[in-house]
Amino acid sequence: MPPPSDDSLLIVAALGGNALLRRGQPLDADVQRENVRGAAAVLAGLAGSHRLVIVHGNGPQIGLLALQSEAYRDVRAYPLDVLGAETEGMIGYLLERELANALAERQIVALLTQVVVDANDPAFAAPTKPIGPMYAEEEARRLATARGWVVAPDGSGWRRVVASPHPRAIVELEAIRILLDAGVIVVAAGGGGIPIVVDDNGVRHGVEAVIDKDWAAAVLADALGADALLLLTDVSAVHLSWGTPHARPLDRGSPNEIAALRFDPGSMGPKVDAACWFVSHSGKRAVIGAVSHALAMLRGEAGTRIDPDITAGA
Amino acid sequence: MPPPSDDSLLIVAALGGNALLRRGQPLDADVQRENVRGAAAVLAGLAGSHRLVIVHGNGPQIGLLALQSEAYRDVRAYPLDVLGAETEGMIGYLLERELANALAERQIVALLTQVVVDANDPAFAAPTKPIGPMYAEEEARRLATARGWVVAPDGSGWRRVVASPHPRAIVELEAIRILLDAGVIVVAAGGGGIPIVVDDNGVRHGVEAVIDKDWAAAVLADALGADALLLLTDVSAVHLSWGTPHARPLDRGSPNEIAALRFDPGSMGPKVDAACWFVSHSGKRAVIGAVSHALAMLRGEAGTRIDPDITAGA
Repeated sequence: MPPPSDDSLLIVAALGGNALLRRGQPLDADVQRENVRGAAAVLAGLAGSHRLVIVHGNGPQIGLLALQSEAYRDVRAYPLDVLGAETEGMIGYLLERELANALAERQIVALLTQVVVDANDPAFAAPTKPIGPMYAEEEARRLATARGWVVAPDGSGWRRVVASPHPRAIVELEAIRILLDAGVIVVAAGGGGIPIVVDDNGVRHGVEAVIDKDWAAAVLADALGADALLLLTDVSAVHLSWGTPHARPLDRGSPNEIAALRFDPGSMGPKVDAACWFVSHSGKRAVIGAVSHALAMLRGEAGTRIDPDITAGA
Repeated sequence: MPPPSDDSLLIVAALGGNALLRRGQPLDADVQRENVRGAAAVLAGLAGSHRLVIVHGNGPQIGLLALQSEAYRDVRAYPLDVLGAETEGMIGYLLERELANALAERQIVALLTQVVVDANDPAFAAPTKPIGPMYAEEEARRLATARGWVVAPDGSGWRRVVASPHPRAIVELEAIRILLDAGVIVVAAGGGGIPIVVDDNGVRHGVEAVIDKDWAAAVLADALGADALLLLTDVSAVHLSWGTPHARPLDRGSPNEIAALRFDPGSMGPKVDAACWFVSHSGKRAVIGAVSHALAMLRGEAGTRIDPDITAGA
């Protein structure tokens, strides 16, 4: 396991749930493995000469696992912190295995990651994060009554929505740093991390929530002192006038310039907010773009680059 | 996070599935959390002055997760390597969280762990490891036909049985060593590890199997150069004439002496075999006994101690 060279960068790359599972694909293990294999080939390119932390999404997967209780006689539905931990196991394993297949000479590990949230976060009173399958409205309302879910419209259908509190601290930060310093590639904060709260006595408890993985990646990147944050998704860049005939990609901008624009709060909005926060807070750069362009994004040749030291251009 | 002192031991402790879930208890997340809390209090005592790796079982949990496919429309049943990874997530999270609640001053992480097995292991042709719930014989035979399971009698009922190949190598060994050297307590090889094979081209593939967690712990302990292997279960010691009125605990023995005895191949047999292999191979000691006695076992005051340098006595 060669240690990284002195001029290598520390990169935190967040891999969207849609990069692991394209819309309309079944959630079969085989399908996810094939998608992970494709992403791993790209990530291996990044990891070849840099220190790398990979954060992944889990929206479709945790929604699927939340259905498992239907099959369990005499067992109560598992809470979202435990289901989130299961998705860190499932997706983390596939990522570390396929990354090793693409990059044999480096040690790769997936670390279960707890992320502290605030018990008084307003998100607990207003669930917004969609998980699981799409339902017709009538079925969604029936499930909401039967299971105590909150449901909301999402695109052409309805989905279960859960609380998505803001990440405050990464519990395993020190261990992640130790592994990175030793040249290990680390998969961490999968699904945004396992949400916990710490009570007044310092005792940790799991909570019913799913943390936004782009925000978790931004907080982790800042805490690690990362040189770059890459938010990898299924579109090539942040677009102005997205969804209209006038849509055009935004090449670059400063956090202040981008904060003046408006993006879809259900998809690009949190990515842009998380990226801008990281850049403002750390003084380092963030790039939003397509998984397959990750290397070009790092070189400044693809995606939407957010940097405190440049002026906007589109 | 204080580094371990020079005279601290390196201990690998394997926690039986029955220590996490007592027979007859429902598999609710709350029940498991309470049991984990009890085990964590004991493990914190071990970790207070030693370097510690914790391996846990997953028999009941992986069997439960294997039922989840009944709830998923349009999704094929997940293979056992992926389900095993999910149990490493679920149980590893509960263990690291409750261990942190019991031992605030040390960093604790759970690492997903892949374990290499031999694709030609005879276990693939003769499944023996029981997982999941107990069924009546008729129901078990119906499920075997419907799902392609192998089923077998287990105590008073029938259960699904799966292949349990021998662990050959721990993929994340180097990362575990790095973390231990930095004073981190590591949860690893949960459920015996995620079973993979490596093909002639060096490519890793998951396989349908569940590795024995006591054997995985023994192989890990040997590879790490551990000073002691503790196999923690729900009985206080290895017993001679177990299940008869003449049952009596075995205090100690050498591997050669113990190899001459006979134990239940479904429960104590693999523990005794794994412990004897570790002691013969490493020259260090192994102790089999109750979770609640772990500290006394380490001091030589409880359990069945297997050591190459002593003579038998019972």
